[in-house]
Amino acid sequence: MADLFWPGDERAGDHFTQQDFVGAMLAVEAAWLGREVPVPVVADDLARAAEAGGNPVIPLVEALRRDEPDAHRGLTSQDVLDSALMRMAGSAVADLRADLAVLVDRLAELAARHRDTAMVARTLTQHAVPTTFGFRVAAWLTAVLDADDDLARLAFPQQLGGAAGTRAAMVELGRQVPPDVPRWHTTRAPVTRLGDALAGCTDACARIANDVLVMSRPEVAELAEGVGGGSSTMPGKANPTLSVLVRRAALTTPQLAATLHLAAAQQVDDRADGGWHAEWATLRDLVRRTLVAASQTLDLVSGLRVDTERMAATLAAAGDAVLAEQRTMAEAAGHEPAPSYLGDAGAYVDAVVARARRSPHDPTPEEQR
Amino acid sequence: MADLFWPGDERAGDHFTQQDFVGAMLAVEAAWLGREVPVPVVADDLARAAEAGGNPVIPLVEALRRDEPDAHRGLTSQDVLDSALMRMAGSAVADLRADLAVLVDRLAELAARHRDTAMVARTLTQHAVPTTFGFRVAAWLTAVLDADDDLARLAFPQQLGGAAGTRAAMVELGRQVPPDVPRWHTTRAPVTRLGDALAGCTDACARIANDVLVMSRPEVAELAEGVGGGSSTMPGKANPTLSVLVRRAALTTPQLAATLHLAAAQQVDDRADGGWHAEWATLRDLVRRTLVAASQTLDLVSGLRVDTERMAATLAAAGDAVLAEQRTMAEAAGHEPAPSYLGDAGAYVDAVVARARRSPHDPTPEEQR
Amino acid sequence: MADLFWPGDERAGDHFTQQDFVGAMLAVEAAWLGREVPVPVVADDLARAAEAGGNPVIPLVEALRRDEPDAHRGLTSQDVLDSALMRMAGSAVADLRADLAVLVDRLAELAARHRDTAMVARTLTQHAVPTTFGFRVAAWLTAVLDADDDLARLAFPQQLGGAAGTRAAMVELGRQVPPDVPRWHTTRAPVTRLGDALAGCTDACARIANDVLVMSRPEVAELAEGVGGGSSTMPGKANPTLSVLVRRAALTTPQLAATLHLAAAQQVDDRADGGWHAEWATLRDLVRRTLVAASQTLDLVSGLRVDTERMAATLAAAGDAVLAEQRTMAEAAGHEPAPSYLGDAGAYVDAVVARARRSPHDPTPEEQR
Amino acid sequence: MADLFWPGDERAGDHFTQQDFVGAMLAVEAAWLGREVPVPVVADDLARAAEAGGNPVIPLVEALRRDEPDAHRGLTSQDVLDSALMRMAGSAVADLRADLAVLVDRLAELAARHRDTAMVARTLTQHAVPTTFGFRVAAWLTAVLDADDDLARLAFPQQLGGAAGTRAAMVELGRQVPPDVPRWHTTRAPVTRLGDALAGCTDACARIANDVLVMSRPEVAELAEGVGGGSSTMPGKANPTLSVLVRRAALTTPQLAATLHLAAAQQVDDRADGGWHAEWATLRDLVRRTLVAASQTLDLVSGLRVDTERMAATLAAAGDAVLAEQRTMAEAAGHEPAPSYLGDAGAYVDAVVARARRSPHDPTPEEQR
Repeated sequence: MADLFWPGDERAGDHFTQQDFVGAMLAVEAAWLGREVPVPVVADDLARAAEAGGNPVIPLVEALRRDEPDAHRGLTSQDVLDSALMRMAGSAVADLRADLAVLVDRLAELAARHRDTAMVARTLTQHAVPTTFGFRVAAWLTAVLDADDDLARLAFPQQLGGAAGTRAAMVELGRQVPPDVPRWHTTRAPVTRLGDALAGCTDACARIANDVLVMSRPEVAELAEGVGGGSSTMPGKANPTLSVLVRRAALTTPQLAATLHLAAAQQVDDRADGGWHAEWATLRDLVRRTLVAASQTLDLVSGLRVDTERMAATLAAAGDAVLAEQRTMAEAAGHEPAPSYLGDAGAYVDAVVARARRSPHDPTPEEQR
Repeated sequence: MADLFWPGDERAGDHFTQQDFVGAMLAVEAAWLGREVPVPVVADDLARAAEAGGNPVIPLVEALRRDEPDAHRGLTSQDVLDSALMRMAGSAVADLRADLAVLVDRLAELAARHRDTAMVARTLTQHAVPTTFGFRVAAWLTAVLDADDDLARLAFPQQLGGAAGTRAAMVELGRQVPPDVPRWHTTRAPVTRLGDALAGCTDACARIANDVLVMSRPEVAELAEGVGGGSSTMPGKANPTLSVLVRRAALTTPQLAATLHLAAAQQVDDRADGGWHAEWATLRDLVRRTLVAASQTLDLVSGLRVDTERMAATLAAAGDAVLAEQRTMAEAAGHEPAPSYLGDAGAYVDAVVARARRSPHDPTPEEQR
Repeated sequence: MADLFWPGDERAGDHFTQQDFVGAMLAVEAAWLGREVPVPVVADDLARAAEAGGNPVIPLVEALRRDEPDAHRGLTSQDVLDSALMRMAGSAVADLRADLAVLVDRLAELAARHRDTAMVARTLTQHAVPTTFGFRVAAWLTAVLDADDDLARLAFPQQLGGAAGTRAAMVELGRQVPPDVPRWHTTRAPVTRLGDALAGCTDACARIANDVLVMSRPEVAELAEGVGGGSSTMPGKANPTLSVLVRRAALTTPQLAATLHLAAAQQVDDRADGGWHAEWATLRDLVRRTLVAASQTLDLVSGLRVDTERMAATLAAAGDAVLAEQRTMAEAAGHEPAPSYLGDAGAYVDAVVARARRSPHDPTPEEQR
Repeated sequence: MADLFWPGDERAGDHFTQQDFVGAMLAVEAAWLGREVPVPVVADDLARAAEAGGNPVIPLVEALRRDEPDAHRGLTSQDVLDSALMRMAGSAVADLRADLAVLVDRLAELAARHRDTAMVARTLTQHAVPTTFGFRVAAWLTAVLDADDDLARLAFPQQLGGAAGTRAAMVELGRQVPPDVPRWHTTRAPVTRLGDALAGCTDACARIANDVLVMSRPEVAELAEGVGGGSSTMPGKANPTLSVLVRRAALTTPQLAATLHLAAAQQVDDRADGGWHAEWATLRDLVRRTLVAASQTLDLVSGLRVDTERMAATLAAAGDAVLAEQRTMAEAAGHEPAPSYLGDAGAYVDAVVARARRSPHDPTPEEQR
């Protein structure tokens, strides 16, 4: 799968494709039935048959029962669909976190390598005081670690409740289900937490991309993407394409996460009249775009070219202006300005790198199942 | 094309599919070149090649130039992509408006037929005063007419500016372009207006679906969808599936339209570093979902079953309570309550139906080109 | 403070008012200075002076230094503003969780009381199978417990970094700051997590309100608000006003939370050029609206009138149709239908009530400080 | 009024303040009553009394009737509230357009003055080909003109329908209302169009601010705000504060406009159960922020400092790279490169300036009433 409207989409692999969705629904049905089931229908046909009942489980079960008349007995379509979504989500988040783990390593190396690489800090677009590139990378790394912490706490629960969540059919059939398996047909925290964590992940990626976009402007030229993108008309142009595409993603994901909250806030009765249905494509787009953005950010960071001489030159050229604060402080403290004005930047880089290295390496969602 | 994550998606036909996109880009290149060009590449391959330069035009031009070395000469990738988006959008909006025109006719008929069908009005979920079902349908019709007015005013401009919008290459090549062809590489009103109008259209469709959902509740039972959707486990259940799916769409489109505004607000330089790229998939989803919702609403209205006896019975059962206001007013006016308390509902229905019948039948975007 | 545009706003008390903001900023400055400081300026004057530098800290410090020339030495305006926001947020979340704790108790009582109150389940607006009102309340309770879990994990960190986060001025002044105090000037997880948790809270409140709105429709009449709201023109009308206002909130908060993510995704350099500034009012509105919604939901639940006879009557009238699934299942299982078809609804109510009763009563954010 | 959480808020004056709201509601009541009415209640008291019925009209009417027992006779609270919102909106949009008219003049002057000021074009952050600063300003001007066109087409209709829109009470009272006065209690195009147009306006303002933020970076230094903002700790720093604050606004307004669409899509029955109530504060914030952003943009443009020498120097330093396209084109055309490579930039500036000068100067909403 590759999406002409979303360059880079193929980086998300098979996650949340139509085939993945069919496979996940069938895996849920098979687990309930207690044996493997064949794929009874083509995804595109299933999609076309899904409208009549409002979801794809109804025609899937119909097809499945040609061979397995007892399939789905006791379940409701929402059980299957929600469980399938979470199964797909768990797998996607596991892959996402694997990419983030490598990204964390690369950023930790980069921060450590440039722990003492001086450059000018910029606030509100203007030169402020001296800083180090390692300190900046420590901010990038913090963003990614924070995002990963949110992903690490996610759960991907099954849904098992039957027609109205009460398990009436299961009890009638004599099926035992452990009572601690949650029921969340109309309370969607598992979905909104997932959406929020994914949006947090693209926030972190964009945090990095934004800096690369500023710092690779030709007038700044302190950073450059490893391989620039070309132009359809201007020979020799090298654009920071990965950064542009990462930034793109982060302009769209917050609204997708908001849609999941809105859908959660529209829950009513024992199954919602639209709030549930709005989740599926929204989650698909959110998951795939986050996978793509994380993968692109990993490539971006891996290939990043750092011009430390240019950083030094810009800082030198900024001259006295960026030490004005130091003079005020030294005067207030009653001593001469110290030879360096980098505060505890180095110690902070060390602390963030240490956080990265002890980082939980929590069990991934896949391992949790 | 049919989307398992968005039941009903196939109603949107080929609009904004990958093939449609390739075709539209090639049509733009062909128009510029002055002759037809073959399809030089498979959509999925093109999608995979699009990431390197950040957009699909770069690899498309490369493929095209194998046969047509002069193709694209003077254009920039944004010229082609924006023009292609607008070409697709114009065609989609024309089809959308064709569906709305039929919907308007059906609603006008329905309103006229039930001009004097009494029922109880409901405000803030509670019984209020008497009204007519025709008056309610007049509200639905107003919503659709307003939405169509916004679609009617849309323009679908070409984009012709070259690398930085200045047409430097065109002038160098001696190509004449009429000076009144607009340039909107970094000012995106054509895109945001489109998004806003589409969101307005799903608002109108949801306006109708919401009423059907309330009024087809078994305790109300004044309306029913023509063909109810089934259940995967409960025999005989008939769900208002079309209404549910229409309502679903309207929970997602406002955030997509907001994304287009956010992208517009991120425009900078002579081509934006992400704000442009965020538009493509967003617009695709917005267009297709609106087409689906309008088509489903048309089916919903066409098949709608109206139980006028139940309406009468509910109104009768509501009794004196819904005439409490009338008694107050009659007392204030110093006369006995009039035999009816429907105000000018009938005249209003007539006025809205008249608006529908004279409705502009503006030239569609297709005809405008 | 009371907001004519947001009825019920006064329930949020002084949280995130202008005075609260001034007080929080001064508390931060006082803590840094090591002694109490007077309020040197009127909030409205400060607001007017804030535009020139883009934030209110600059004029506040200017006013403060008339009496305390050493105030703010070593800090940057973002240190003060961010710390003040988190101080206000911590206090507001503590109050919010106190309301939720009472709400949890009330819902647990309500669920337990109606553990065996039979009513009809509704899915996609239509009657499904039998359920209990206690089972429904268990869903409400789950929603609130999930929301509270997200609030419980929030942290409200200080911000202490100086002009570019490096603590250069602090070091120059010889001030010691524990190195484990985080710096998050351009990585905004503390803000986005707060926003997401607040949106999750209004989702949960709306989950409840939506059911009350449906079930208090006169045709359903299984629930009613304790005190209905009146009309400006219709005597005797009783509207479910609290539910309406709660639902209102949840239509707005997801987009506010999305704005916080968008702002986070616009972080760049060592202080962002707009992404930071967009947070303040957004967070204020999000906090206050959530406080109001939770308080209204508490009143709503506390006063809720439950008509168990009507529930029984509706279920009885639904008749055989809601037992169609049972007959299928009993036939599949080869036995007569059981006398009840409520599955493990009672056991599930017990489990959710048990969760509520052992609920963490985590230390509140106030206690954590 | 000035908002500590939104620096610059006081630029919006009295528009959509609590007093303005009370005044507008009273003006509606007075127009209906046919004579002036006193202000019977303090805004803050009214706000506190508004929750019980869910809106402020109910307690306002109660207060009003102490002196005017016939006030409000025939109206419903939504008639008054909607009419008041539109009255306020019409006045605010008139003031907004007055600011935009001056902004258009300033931009037209600026574009004309710099019609031939050469600078380097930038696409995807990188140098592209030569352009002129006038051409860039023509893009800014286009954005503002497009935004103003959307404001010009807005209507600010009254609402006059009574309890359920049918005018039953008015007819009972013998009050004549022209039948062509629209009723839009549950079809909210007047509100969503307003929201969309306001978001379009902040898009346009941000379009300008983004360029100033890039071009006032010290490494670019082609533009500077007239008066830079200071720092709380760094002497001599000059920040592009107005641009930062304008950009801030545009990060928030699209989500507010989306909220209005979501509210419109939640319309149901004859008055919505939350969708209506969500509009009021949303519209207030959207209107005030847009007024502030437009006013700040006007100051920004009015004071803008343009360093044409730096522009020339940067273009010269970019050297041959920005003429690579020209060489390709000249070769393709079989002639030597022309001495200039600015295409029709000058003619385009002339065309946009001409559009600005003939710009409709439509009657403002105030004049339309």
